[in-house]
Amino acid sequence: MKSDKIKKIAVLTSGGDAPGMNAAIRAVVRACTYYEVACFGVFRGFQGLMEGDLKEMGPRDVKYIISKGGTILKSARSKEFMTKEGRKKAHHTIEKYGIDALIIIGGDGSFTGGMLLSKEFNLPVIGIPGTIDNDIYGTSHTIGYDTALNTVIDAVDKIRDTATSHKRIFFVEVMGRDAGFIALNSGIGAGAEEILIPEENIGLPKLLEKLKRSKASGKSSCIVIVAEGEKSGKNVFELSDYVEEHLPEYDVRVSVIGHIQRGGSPSCFDRVLASRSGVAAVEALLKGKKNIMIGLQNDLMAYTPLEKAIKGENKIDEELIRISDILSI
Amino acid sequence: MKSDKIKKIAVLTSGGDAPGMNAAIRAVVRACTYYEVACFGVFRGFQGLMEGDLKEMGPRDVKYIISKGGTILKSARSKEFMTKEGRKKAHHTIEKYGIDALIIIGGDGSFTGGMLLSKEFNLPVIGIPGTIDNDIYGTSHTIGYDTALNTVIDAVDKIRDTATSHKRIFFVEVMGRDAGFIALNSGIGAGAEEILIPEENIGLPKLLEKLKRSKASGKSSCIVIVAEGEKSGKNVFELSDYVEEHLPEYDVRVSVIGHIQRGGSPSCFDRVLASRSGVAAVEALLKGKKNIMIGLQNDLMAYTPLEKAIKGENKIDEELIRISDILSI
Amino acid sequence: MKSDKIKKIAVLTSGGDAPGMNAAIRAVVRACTYYEVACFGVFRGFQGLMEGDLKEMGPRDVKYIISKGGTILKSARSKEFMTKEGRKKAHHTIEKYGIDALIIIGGDGSFTGGMLLSKEFNLPVIGIPGTIDNDIYGTSHTIGYDTALNTVIDAVDKIRDTATSHKRIFFVEVMGRDAGFIALNSGIGAGAEEILIPEENIGLPKLLEKLKRSKASGKSSCIVIVAEGEKSGKNVFELSDYVEEHLPEYDVRVSVIGHIQRGGSPSCFDRVLASRSGVAAVEALLKGKKNIMIGLQNDLMAYTPLEKAIKGENKIDEELIRISDILSI
Amino acid sequence: MKSDKIKKIAVLTSGGDAPGMNAAIRAVVRACTYYEVACFGVFRGFQGLMEGDLKEMGPRDVKYIISKGGTILKSARSKEFMTKEGRKKAHHTIEKYGIDALIIIGGDGSFTGGMLLSKEFNLPVIGIPGTIDNDIYGTSHTIGYDTALNTVIDAVDKIRDTATSHKRIFFVEVMGRDAGFIALNSGIGAGAEEILIPEENIGLPKLLEKLKRSKASGKSSCIVIVAEGEKSGKNVFELSDYVEEHLPEYDVRVSVIGHIQRGGSPSCFDRVLASRSGVAAVEALLKGKKNIMIGLQNDLMAYTPLEKAIKGENKIDEELIRISDILSI
Repeated sequence: MKSDKIKKIAVLTSGGDAPGMNAAIRAVVRACTYYEVACFGVFRGFQGLMEGDLKEMGPRDVKYIISKGGTILKSARSKEFMTKEGRKKAHHTIEKYGIDALIIIGGDGSFTGGMLLSKEFNLPVIGIPGTIDNDIYGTSHTIGYDTALNTVIDAVDKIRDTATSHKRIFFVEVMGRDAGFIALNSGIGAGAEEILIPEENIGLPKLLEKLKRSKASGKSSCIVIVAEGEKSGKNVFELSDYVEEHLPEYDVRVSVIGHIQRGGSPSCFDRVLASRSGVAAVEALLKGKKNIMIGLQNDLMAYTPLEKAIKGENKIDEELIRISDILSI
Repeated sequence: MKSDKIKKIAVLTSGGDAPGMNAAIRAVVRACTYYEVACFGVFRGFQGLMEGDLKEMGPRDVKYIISKGGTILKSARSKEFMTKEGRKKAHHTIEKYGIDALIIIGGDGSFTGGMLLSKEFNLPVIGIPGTIDNDIYGTSHTIGYDTALNTVIDAVDKIRDTATSHKRIFFVEVMGRDAGFIALNSGIGAGAEEILIPEENIGLPKLLEKLKRSKASGKSSCIVIVAEGEKSGKNVFELSDYVEEHLPEYDVRVSVIGHIQRGGSPSCFDRVLASRSGVAAVEALLKGKKNIMIGLQNDLMAYTPLEKAIKGENKIDEELIRISDILSI
Repeated sequence: MKSDKIKKIAVLTSGGDAPGMNAAIRAVVRACTYYEVACFGVFRGFQGLMEGDLKEMGPRDVKYIISKGGTILKSARSKEFMTKEGRKKAHHTIEKYGIDALIIIGGDGSFTGGMLLSKEFNLPVIGIPGTIDNDIYGTSHTIGYDTALNTVIDAVDKIRDTATSHKRIFFVEVMGRDAGFIALNSGIGAGAEEILIPEENIGLPKLLEKLKRSKASGKSSCIVIVAEGEKSGKNVFELSDYVEEHLPEYDVRVSVIGHIQRGGSPSCFDRVLASRSGVAAVEALLKGKKNIMIGLQNDLMAYTPLEKAIKGENKIDEELIRISDILSI
Repeated sequence: MKSDKIKKIAVLTSGGDAPGMNAAIRAVVRACTYYEVACFGVFRGFQGLMEGDLKEMGPRDVKYIISKGGTILKSARSKEFMTKEGRKKAHHTIEKYGIDALIIIGGDGSFTGGMLLSKEFNLPVIGIPGTIDNDIYGTSHTIGYDTALNTVIDAVDKIRDTATSHKRIFFVEVMGRDAGFIALNSGIGAGAEEILIPEENIGLPKLLEKLKRSKASGKSSCIVIVAEGEKSGKNVFELSDYVEEHLPEYDVRVSVIGHIQRGGSPSCFDRVLASRSGVAAVEALLKGKKNIMIGLQNDLMAYTPLEKAIKGENKIDEELIRISDILSI
């Protein structure tokens, strides 16, 4: 594959970091080498693009990073880039280095930034969805999501050990401000007794009722997975207080899984997905594609217009709520 | 959901064990409770069915097993069951306990046994694909496969540490007598320099050439993933000897990952897949389905006639071979 | 080994659970079998002893628990047992079952309860130190401590991934209300830039100065490990706010590791320590010892009078503070 | 601390790599920075010293390596260095760079090389014991040993899952050509039914007898840990064949854990030990010590004359054999 127009590609990571971003960077860099295209790694996302903080990368520069969490290119959220002035600076870097196209590994905020750049300066942009939240339209799985799920169930398995030893209820907060993907899937995977997600507000009375039923059924511990953005109107500590007040005979604890969800060596699933996505991104550019997102659909690589990816919404599988109810019996 | 015909369901695990089998058992048992159907757990697969080694199970009998490797119902390969006499014994148990349907968690050998029982005694049978090998038609993922991949890359990451420290070539054997799923995906995930699978024989000269190219490119270690069933005509130790003979300046080692691939706490992916499959199996029976396999297709639960699942072949994604070549540059 | 006086031993776990308690229970039970002494497992600590919640256990009852976190005997904190009335009830159980001696796996609170029982009713009691906090006199390592350290560094390694990607400061709270063992050792193990422990109050100005020096030295992230009981007068969130206020150019985050520190499969160190301790406890009783704690001193099993173990204080190795300072340069 | 004589220190890793070597390198480099001594990292052990393959290292050159397996300085076994000619080359490098002392992280083979260099050219040498085998006199724990134990029990826990599911006997080979440390401790930690080590030959008839007793006691699986160097005269595969022949009703399998034992992120214990050892090595040089090994004795850093460390033998704790017998009941 060869293209007259695409001789130099830049790649950056932007927004919250996710395990597998390094695997995607590696795939972009090596696919560039394979197709004899120059590849520049941009540091600290759009901020680095504005500041000219980038370097050419070859295949040995990305050795062994496939197994490492985080992103060797660093990430950042840049306010300045959201201004026209900021993007002019970024374009200046692009011109200076003769960069023909940009690959952005990140979430929809990052894609929005990329779209602006693309429109204003006619730069081909490709998005690779990298975020643990899985809340991006046009792909069944975002890079980092599978790893985050495994991190969560590993943590909840540990919490289950102590919960069972002491016959306790645990409210466990997991990431997900807008979407319940992590909560719902890790909740089923961890065998949680209840799962609270933004997409469904079961109401506090029903929560109490379910906890009572759970104890009555002979269970010696109870795990409630709580997505950050769930809609009860109470945060995880307030939920715990509420339950302690209404069910004083219960011993309730809170655990906030927190930032460990963003780190760690990526799972095989994420490494393979990131590897495929990175290659697909480079090949899409060489085929003349632009302003699309690379995604996974029915286990195959698929393109989605970047605009659609930004505006669309990835819906949780409601069937899983039903499954969770059945299995927590 | 209710059925006049399905009042008692038996479930067994058969063939090689796989992580997530316990999660599937749990899901079958709890879905039965949910739908007010009696559930019998049969020990040691068809052997236990012949011997009447089974017990009724309730939701508390499967507590906490979602996170455990292996199968609490044990597994076995039964020669006797492959005879008509053997199956008569199994049917005797079925009659004695008034069992209306059987759910089999296992691979295609186990499904074949189930089909025979179904045909000879008109017993509704449902298959749930549980094997680390992913070599079953009708599902994109078998239960246990994702966990095995993570176990392999974790092992290869460790081997990479020592390989790089000593600038060595490692031949790493992974499971897969008939199919290269584990080798191909774990190979990409581990960033292997070469992957040998049953589906593609690259030939020994090409292997040598690739190893030389790998060293010339400046790599300080080299991992070759070898599926058990690959077609070079040499086993992993012979391959190592062959390379040492032809490239005497290389320091070559062998590692056989072995049975650790079958064990371990299942990944979130496998736990969710097993949970969904177990519920789907019970619901399929209640809807009057029989002799089908529950599978995952395009991320949704799907039915495949058991006969088709047995005869069909799950093909590896050849695209991944291409990806692997690009990324090992 | 045989004793005329010790024919029936009871074992219980008490206080906060710790990984390796199951391995200790297994060792007690199997050592009893080996020496032909009956062994009773008491559920829910002293509460279960008062309520007569116990059962005789044989070697197969403890199979496979060596690798499991938590305690199969459950644990509890009992207020009633702290009254004379409560202990009379416990003694009633002891009389009823003809129990000759009691082995208590727990922390110094639990040992205090045991001492009271021993004095009031002349019952031989042996303590096995099981707590993640390592704050017990008479042993270099308590059961669960090594596992907790590994859990913490695994979590902090993950946090480091995201901290480095975003150039952030993280305040990471670990367990340790009264002692800095976990903080100090995990802090060194995780390569933390600063460690705040109850035993040493460096003061807030010095903290700021160290963070500034850390950034000036070119570090792209900064981890501060904070023991729950450290003495700055601020909790981990307030510390974070304080730093953000005084160093507004820093991006600061908080992570509370929490209850995952109590769970998980025990490390080999903890399993071996628990195994040795359990056998030593039974053998001590058969040798006529009483009211002692089994501990690890210079890698050997050692006895400490229970009273001394309760009153004494396990001091942190101050040398480690110095090491940490040198290594965070 | 300051020394007129020690202004430049070189550090190298030699022999088989072990987890924690990087943590030791980091500690040496940073302690040098702290004490304002120049530090040179030598690549590929003595081979690199002969070839002049070294570079000056500062504190940022060792960032984040505390959590990484392997050795960033690489390791090698050098035949040439074992000749006088070879050592002259090494000395040439030392003269050329003005190196005042050498820190060697490795096993006793590496220390022997260091001693020769020291005697022939009057160069102060310090040894840090880094090997997974724990077979070095003068230290209770070598760097890497604790991590290797955890890797082994993690692997055996996985094997136990499948062994139990199929009621199998597994012979599991672990490292240890001359010493049974890994086998004995991991065997106890994994709850092995039998442990075969170089230090004790129980004989094949007794092995058969123990396996029979194990099955008779109702155990549904059996794990035999076999050190590479055990003395039955049969390797692990021959042992398996022998048992299958004499106990044909048993289903026997073999697993060779292999090189994964050398890799992986080091445990907290190994990271702290390596950190302390690296600092102690630099400080020992500044205090004028030479030709000693830094070790852990009674949880404290201790010096052992290098010659004694080489000649002495670290003995296994025979008490553990007794414990293992009791606990496998």
